[in-house]
Amino acid sequence: MADQVLSLDEVKTLAQSALEGAGASAQNAASVARSTVLAERDGIRSHGLLYVPIYAEHVLCGKADGNAVPEVAQPRPGAVCVDAKCGFAHPAIDAGWQPLCEAARANGIAALTIYNSYNCGVLGHHAERLAEHGLVGLCFTHAPASIAPTGGSRPVVGTNPFALAVPDGEGNAALVIDQSASVIAKSEIMLRAKAGEPIEPDWALDADGRPTTDAQLALKGSMLPAGGYKGFGIGLLVEIMASCLSGAVSSVDASPFSGTAGGPPKTGQCLIAIDPGAFSGDVFYQRIAALVEEIGGQEGSRVPGARRKENSRRLVEQGVSVDEALIERIRGFSC
Amino acid sequence: MADQVLSLDEVKTLAQSALEGAGASAQNAASVARSTVLAERDGIRSHGLLYVPIYAEHVLCGKADGNAVPEVAQPRPGAVCVDAKCGFAHPAIDAGWQPLCEAARANGIAALTIYNSYNCGVLGHHAERLAEHGLVGLCFTHAPASIAPTGGSRPVVGTNPFALAVPDGEGNAALVIDQSASVIAKSEIMLRAKAGEPIEPDWALDADGRPTTDAQLALKGSMLPAGGYKGFGIGLLVEIMASCLSGAVSSVDASPFSGTAGGPPKTGQCLIAIDPGAFSGDVFYQRIAALVEEIGGQEGSRVPGARRKENSRRLVEQGVSVDEALIERIRGFSC
Repeated sequence: MADQVLSLDEVKTLAQSALEGAGASAQNAASVARSTVLAERDGIRSHGLLYVPIYAEHVLCGKADGNAVPEVAQPRPGAVCVDAKCGFAHPAIDAGWQPLCEAARANGIAALTIYNSYNCGVLGHHAERLAEHGLVGLCFTHAPASIAPTGGSRPVVGTNPFALAVPDGEGNAALVIDQSASVIAKSEIMLRAKAGEPIEPDWALDADGRPTTDAQLALKGSMLPAGGYKGFGIGLLVEIMASCLSGAVSSVDASPFSGTAGGPPKTGQCLIAIDPGAFSGDVFYQRIAALVEEIGGQEGSRVPGARRKENSRRLVEQGVSVDEALIERIRGFSC
Repeated sequence: MADQVLSLDEVKTLAQSALEGAGASAQNAASVARSTVLAERDGIRSHGLLYVPIYAEHVLCGKADGNAVPEVAQPRPGAVCVDAKCGFAHPAIDAGWQPLCEAARANGIAALTIYNSYNCGVLGHHAERLAEHGLVGLCFTHAPASIAPTGGSRPVVGTNPFALAVPDGEGNAALVIDQSASVIAKSEIMLRAKAGEPIEPDWALDADGRPTTDAQLALKGSMLPAGGYKGFGIGLLVEIMASCLSGAVSSVDASPFSGTAGGPPKTGQCLIAIDPGAFSGDVFYQRIAALVEEIGGQEGSRVPGARRKENSRRLVEQGVSVDEALIERIRGFSC
């Protein structure tokens, strides 16, 4: 089948209908559909329409409760805690959003933690949204365990990404860092395993903690962290913020994000929001602008997030090209 | 000369006298001497008595104002901002300590930023101290630029470490992560350069951004981040928190921490303190205990901070063995 060009509005409608068709409430479907649009807008296809059938199947099998109504508590002025009630992460984040932003402005800094949650999609988008509200966003989310501690062989933390987005003082993000703790995404190893291809020697270990280039053995073993023990340290930082502080299940106990088995993953997120106006104020924006200039002004280097921004500029205008078979598959959930 | 065994009390007195002898106020000297004791206690010799002559020389040459009186502001309930007034970092952190801890308990989360500051010694000790107060400590400090963005050649961020310490619910730190953004400490490259020895191929780049094993060329070039672009991302996160948010000078503009030239470095720190009781409470301590058990229970792996803890147990009891020539040199400042 050929490709079809869809506007971002059409992407949204397509995702929304599929999720509602699978049984999600209109509000929950809208939260997730919005994240699908952002992923497509930035050229992150893996988390765009490609993911919609997985979301829909997870509603159908009960891995994500499509009708969950997140419960918000604010035990202290700067602490917003949301129980996602085994639904999607996006509506839970939306439920805590306004209290988080208000608390960050009032106190200078605030945190939103979420438990009984699910995969939150592209983490950088949550950080970027905070930056668009004029706040520094430092976000953490964890995933089923896949990385072993250095020297060990049993996975303890997931590919656990963190994201940082920084406001430019004019309603946009000046930069967005969004990176996982592993050398490579687990999905890449899964692709190699399916294709029967070997993996690079520094990507993973087998179940006994020995280096392997066999993708099948790697999937039964553990992923290597980027930068050795320092990468494991990052994964651990994220685990502590997203799982322990939120009160979510640990990465070791979380059910897989892929497939329909195991019930809700009950993982967690943590979003820290900081108002630069409470700290260095105008100096902050000057320093950020200089930093962006220092990085972007060097030949061969890029400001983190620049590629997504370029994609976004192009795709907002041109729309995205989507495989018709995928469109059909997504439409299949709408009935 | 031979070595002499000193108790940690004797280490403190020695450091205190040298700093006061160089012209620091008793209070400022005490803050710095306390950090010297902690470094020796944990077996981190580079930041223990070995550093005292540098501190003392920096007081004498004006790189650190020994009589600075830090100024504390609290523009919002969760935002504590300290002007270190070009003195040491330690008294500035001490000055903001109580407001930080009180704000973290009242609000759930709070941040202390410090500008016009100096090298804060072992970052992990500040995080550990927060954990000993029952708070999660997430700390950032920056340093003169030495790491170039991936693909570039001009250093933009320093070796910029972060540290995370986590309370165990019983007054101690359950774990302490303390790691820099670079593959290796800059001091190691300086040692190799002095000895005329080559460096490892993945440690640094020359001034044109090309890999080098020549330590001299590396010192004129840039340090490589651990984990490639992800390590640069960590250095950038730290830069944004410790320099931009605090309003300190950028790493690019900071004067060197070593030597007597360039005046006060005017760098910054950021300490985020979080009260687990405001978020997941008891569940937090259960999750942390399980995580420590998962990591420490694997053959060949270690809980971050375990080595320092082992050193501490031994050295508190046995005292530390110090080169007599160093003791003499430190005593020379006391007169």
